[in-house]
Amino acid sequence: MVYDDQNIFAKIIKGDVSCVKVLENEFILAFMDVMPQAPGHTLVIPKCKTTNLLDLPEEYFPHLMGATQKIAKSIKKVYSPAGVMVLQLNGSEAGQTVFHLHFHIIQRRGGLNYKFHSSGVKSSLELKKERDKIIKNL
Amino acid sequence: MVYDDQNIFAKIIKGDVSCVKVLENEFILAFMDVMPQAPGHTLVIPKCKTTNLLDLPEEYFPHLMGATQKIAKSIKKVYSPAGVMVLQLNGSEAGQTVFHLHFHIIQRRGGLNYKFHSSGVKSSLELKKERDKIIKNL
Repeated sequence: MVYDDQNIFAKIIKGDVSCVKVLENEFILAFMDVMPQAPGHTLVIPKCKTTNLLDLPEEYFPHLMGATQKIAKSIKKVYSPAGVMVLQLNGSEAGQTVFHLHFHIIQRRGGLNYKFHSSGVKSSLELKKERDKIIKNL
Repeated sequence: MVYDDQNIFAKIIKGDVSCVKVLENEFILAFMDVMPQAPGHTLVIPKCKTTNLLDLPEEYFPHLMGATQKIAKSIKKVYSPAGVMVLQLNGSEAGQTVFHLHFHIIQRRGGLNYKFHSSGVKSSLELKKERDKIIKNL
């Protein structure tokens, strides 16, 4: 699949669209999902033009997994959930909606089925409240 | 959570329990899930005593992600699915059932909801048929 430079995450990386940032370095950017499945739902993306995991250059591997681990640990501390789910979807039929590679980190409480729906778009204010808790525990 | 040396994946690593192997190196082992959600459902695990992603030593990061990418690419070639899902569950309420860190790689076709159920245990013969296709495309 050809990478679309105009996708929303490309715009976030360029700074053309704002995000509620959690973590950033030369290789990755992590920010709050605006349609969270649960409080603290965070996305980690690589700062390269890659549609999905299949195309990711290997120099990004340790950085993506490192950031994912760091955020998962913080979410565990902040919310004390029963579980944390790491999910990465490739292709629209797998549930991918933005075609820039991203890892979801989502706390899990009751129930075992994951639904690809959320409770709707949250405001920056609401997202920042959760972000601040996560950042404090990184 | 304390790592249980008697979990089934620990036994697979030690060779006390057999598996239908896809890929192995010093750091990781990949093998067919015996209760596949879809044909080709593969698991990647680190060869260290780690319950979940939160405890994984960083030297394993590139190897785990590298193997996951390699297998996802092969599954894409073999089955031409609409999507590939990478899933990693931490904690029983997130759906984790074996307490040794593992990444699921599962092809996705129709429908968007992921169910934590499978069609039951498959025989080694059935699993080897799928494994052989994946290995050929690694």
